[in-house]
Amino acid sequence: MRTIDVCFSPALFPHYATEDSIVVIVDIFRATTSICAAFQNGASGIKTVASIEEAICWKEKGRLVAAERDTKKCSFADFGNSPFDFTSDKVAEKEIIFTTTNGTQAVEAAINAREIIIGAYSNISCVFRFLNSNNLNVIILCSGWNNRFCLEDTIFAGALSAILLESNSFAFKSDSVSAAIQLWQLAKPDLNNYICRTEHYDRLLKNGVENSVEYCLSFDTTTVLPRYIKSESIFKNSMND
Amino acid sequence: MRTIDVCFSPALFPHYATEDSIVVIVDIFRATTSICAAFQNGASGIKTVASIEEAICWKEKGRLVAAERDTKKCSFADFGNSPFDFTSDKVAEKEIIFTTTNGTQAVEAAINAREIIIGAYSNISCVFRFLNSNNLNVIILCSGWNNRFCLEDTIFAGALSAILLESNSFAFKSDSVSAAIQLWQLAKPDLNNYICRTEHYDRLLKNGVENSVEYCLSFDTTTVLPRYIKSESIFKNSMND
Repeated sequence: MRTIDVCFSPALFPHYATEDSIVVIVDIFRATTSICAAFQNGASGIKTVASIEEAICWKEKGRLVAAERDTKKCSFADFGNSPFDFTSDKVAEKEIIFTTTNGTQAVEAAINAREIIIGAYSNISCVFRFLNSNNLNVIILCSGWNNRFCLEDTIFAGALSAILLESNSFAFKSDSVSAAIQLWQLAKPDLNNYICRTEHYDRLLKNGVENSVEYCLSFDTTTVLPRYIKSESIFKNSMND
Repeated sequence: MRTIDVCFSPALFPHYATEDSIVVIVDIFRATTSICAAFQNGASGIKTVASIEEAICWKEKGRLVAAERDTKKCSFADFGNSPFDFTSDKVAEKEIIFTTTNGTQAVEAAINAREIIIGAYSNISCVFRFLNSNNLNVIILCSGWNNRFCLEDTIFAGALSAILLESNSFAFKSDSVSAAIQLWQLAKPDLNNYICRTEHYDRLLKNGVENSVEYCLSFDTTTVLPRYIKSESIFKNSMND
């Protein structure tokens, strides 16, 4: 039996990390949803970087750069952090450098994990199939907000945990998995309405970037599986069925 | 309107800390319940220390020491971490040095806060009265388990948040408060049964120290309010009505 664990913040990851685990990075609003959208529209690779300075450096080398801080697109960048930014005319067959407030920090925290993949509602079934077909334990790493707990990532972690448990190949002991599943069960009957009462929805609304919320909460709109290729330090799409 | 926040791990406290807040330290199983029990039975002060080495040092100076790691009493110590250890014949009018796996680490994390108090089910109404009578914001700091999220502290944080909100003097924005309240509402109808399904209950059971669980989950069995006195680096009881 493989185990599932859920970690609520990149800052807590050292207390959850184990060898031989696949880490699923989650940042529903909006980095992991946007990364999936970019691959869906044909991007050939996504290189996440933690700092704005590094992103500027890549931009100066002529690369396509997505950069966001506090929900806003950075002025020097080609893209912000909306999944609607990554249209096929702009991203097809291109590599994109990507830095965001939370999601790319979570990737950084997990960089030494055996495997890292990107999860969102948009590719949840692909994530499940990948996890189910590997013989590794699973840690779902919620990006949170500046290392604080956030509900939208937690609810997703609960949804994915519930699907994994239904396969009867996984078990869990951790209280964070229990909590995520219980909260998902509360949210599930009316996910959009539940998420509208969260801290981050409020933040998106105040910054006028709430237009992608419905998309970010829609299940299985893509069939991509962004997977970290260690030898090249880049995410590539490893599924397209 | 004062604010409530809930922090799920001492390791996350830097991301929740604000000036002018009262921090309520929570470690239901069992440090904060035991600290309340010691004061209830007449202890004159409790000095928390983070390391075993420091506790041994105090023991060598002839002081009374409570020391626990991974649910077990340390062999050199006078007390473990069961609330039943601190009987009045042993603790009345005595100062106790106290180190535990999680609770005393949480005190350490919050040491620069404006005010630190100790919360448990056993003194929840005293905690509420103290918080309500002060004009400060509130951060409920869950001790967790080795910096990991735990349900028993989270459920207490939800219960205390719900009581504070009923007073109409407090508000919150934070997703961690929402989550704690929602989980408390799920646990409330049968608290003992809910807690029996947690990770830490299992750990107490395996180590044969589950006998204090019912006591640890009982409301208002004491009228003490352990409060940190900065000038003396010690907790003292500031209420006894």
